[in-house]
Amino acid sequence: MSVINVATSARQDFTALLEGELHLSIDKLEGQAPLLSRMVRFHLGWIDAAGDATDTDTREAVRGKRIRPQLAFLSCAAATGEPALAAPLAAAIELLHNFTLIHDDIQDRSPNRRHRATVWRIWGDAQAINAGDVLFATAQCALLRTDTSRVPAETLLHLIDEFNQATISIVRGQVLDLEFERQATVTTDEYLTMIGGKTAAIMRYAAWAGAIVGGATESTASRLGDLGEALGIGFQIRDDILGIWGACEATGKDQADDIRRRKKSLPILMLLESAAGEQAERLTTLYDMDEIDESGVAEVLRLLDDYDIQTRATARVAHYHDVAENALRTSTGSFSEASASDLETMIRRLDTRGA
Amino acid sequence: MSVINVATSARQDFTALLEGELHLSIDKLEGQAPLLSRMVRFHLGWIDAAGDATDTDTREAVRGKRIRPQLAFLSCAAATGEPALAAPLAAAIELLHNFTLIHDDIQDRSPNRRHRATVWRIWGDAQAINAGDVLFATAQCALLRTDTSRVPAETLLHLIDEFNQATISIVRGQVLDLEFERQATVTTDEYLTMIGGKTAAIMRYAAWAGAIVGGATESTASRLGDLGEALGIGFQIRDDILGIWGACEATGKDQADDIRRRKKSLPILMLLESAAGEQAERLTTLYDMDEIDESGVAEVLRLLDDYDIQTRATARVAHYHDVAENALRTSTGSFSEASASDLETMIRRLDTRGA
Repeated sequence: MSVINVATSARQDFTALLEGELHLSIDKLEGQAPLLSRMVRFHLGWIDAAGDATDTDTREAVRGKRIRPQLAFLSCAAATGEPALAAPLAAAIELLHNFTLIHDDIQDRSPNRRHRATVWRIWGDAQAINAGDVLFATAQCALLRTDTSRVPAETLLHLIDEFNQATISIVRGQVLDLEFERQATVTTDEYLTMIGGKTAAIMRYAAWAGAIVGGATESTASRLGDLGEALGIGFQIRDDILGIWGACEATGKDQADDIRRRKKSLPILMLLESAAGEQAERLTTLYDMDEIDESGVAEVLRLLDDYDIQTRATARVAHYHDVAENALRTSTGSFSEASASDLETMIRRLDTRGA
Repeated sequence: MSVINVATSARQDFTALLEGELHLSIDKLEGQAPLLSRMVRFHLGWIDAAGDATDTDTREAVRGKRIRPQLAFLSCAAATGEPALAAPLAAAIELLHNFTLIHDDIQDRSPNRRHRATVWRIWGDAQAINAGDVLFATAQCALLRTDTSRVPAETLLHLIDEFNQATISIVRGQVLDLEFERQATVTTDEYLTMIGGKTAAIMRYAAWAGAIVGGATESTASRLGDLGEALGIGFQIRDDILGIWGACEATGKDQADDIRRRKKSLPILMLLESAAGEQAERLTTLYDMDEIDESGVAEVLRLLDDYDIQTRATARVAHYHDVAENALRTSTGSFSEASASDLETMIRRLDTRGA
């Protein structure tokens, strides 16, 4: 099942282009210090912990949705650029994302990712830090493979600068996310600032940079950047909603899983801002406990209901849906129709109003 | 006391240029997530852990020798380039170095660096990982401030590519260094490969890139790269020698400190390769113990003496001194004499034969 309902042929094209670039990047890590290449290839799902090649099913399962590189490809295509031109960019974005995942897993002490052990759990924190670091450097090298006979060198320098600015935003978001865990109260505004960095900055960059590589003007690219950012925030809030009310088959998690994990996601923060007196106190008490039992979970769900949080959070997603749609509408002057429609399909997933 | 005896005015010039670029880089981190900027500014010695500005003495003590950015400046000047042209490059190199220091301290569980607590010890591993990550991105942004009206955009892209290749080499070296700690035996060749990545890659890059920015041909820059690499390996081995036989006032450490810390530095690895039978076993036993007492230290020193290791290690340093000197001699065609002489002074520090 693909997240984005792009025409199958285009999707296969994107996948093949991305895989090619990723292998080109990672193959360069062979040689001295084989552990380094092994950790990275394991994390990407290409090999198991013993070093043996994985089967196709495992590879596809570990690969993830690849929404970020797809956005770069679609944005490039929308600007009537050839997809191949965006392949180094797409690989750079995917490698950057994976660098942050490896470090996040250490920071969050996550034992598993996509049903496999995390890098730090197999090789220890110290070597996992190295695996993340090398992916960041490798991401930059991938971006530098952009064809400068078709993308001017000055433009590529601009793309590299924004790539690193986006990374700084991601790290900022991660700093805030870790601080929130120790903080007594977090406002919804603070939360939106955090995901604006941690989740949306790379989506903005993917859409903006894809358009630039595809030959769009800065103003069109900037509108597509707005689209990417709105998608990033919208998808994150949608995930937060699914983490509480999502059906098991859609998310692979149990319903109310995020409540059981006492995750302070947006719906809970909205509830904390809305609830008063006794109810707010009760909620804080529940979230301060080591574990929430099933009656506690039911209690939180009731409170969320009392304050109509699902509807209100869904309205927030709808807002980002509208921002993204508006950004697309106001930037389609020079667009290929097929790609604009693929971007629309991506945006449509955010429209949960009728769902 | 300066490590490199460069004419005072030039040195002050370099320092001011570097400081200016570093502040430009770090000031951009202000804003959201103030903890991020605070960790970085603390690590650089600009503020204390409470956030208050440090005094001049502390700043200078924490600053370190800055041998890497100095090499970039000297190489640029040798190629008759204006030092200011190399300031963004020098800052990028210094920021890259500090990114690796912050992550190394986590990996090595080092409680202190330059007589102050390490970042991870104050703010924890998770946030310290973020501090390192953001310095790496910031380093790339610094390099991108190179004046493209005087260094062609294509050349700058090449400089960025090699910057990231050097980083990959550094991470490789760090992977090996961590692996060596768990390995029963390490050969001197393996050790040299490790420091070739961990220590020498950035020195090669600094000398090469400084020359390129200064307008040198690729062939001259490559000779200066050889010089930088030889300096990097030579200085590391010299440090290893000083760690065992260095007088207290020169190193700030006790004599034989590296033996007490059971550090498998080059002299010890040379001894392990030379000693046979009972002596080799005895050495291995001593290095496998939790602690070496003073009679053990004296025993190791006697063994090192028996196999003439100090003389032989010093001869290795002399070899790298000669390689560096030769690289300078064969590349001085288009050179400014003053800068070549500054580079010679840097090389001369390696000539410990008469010391």
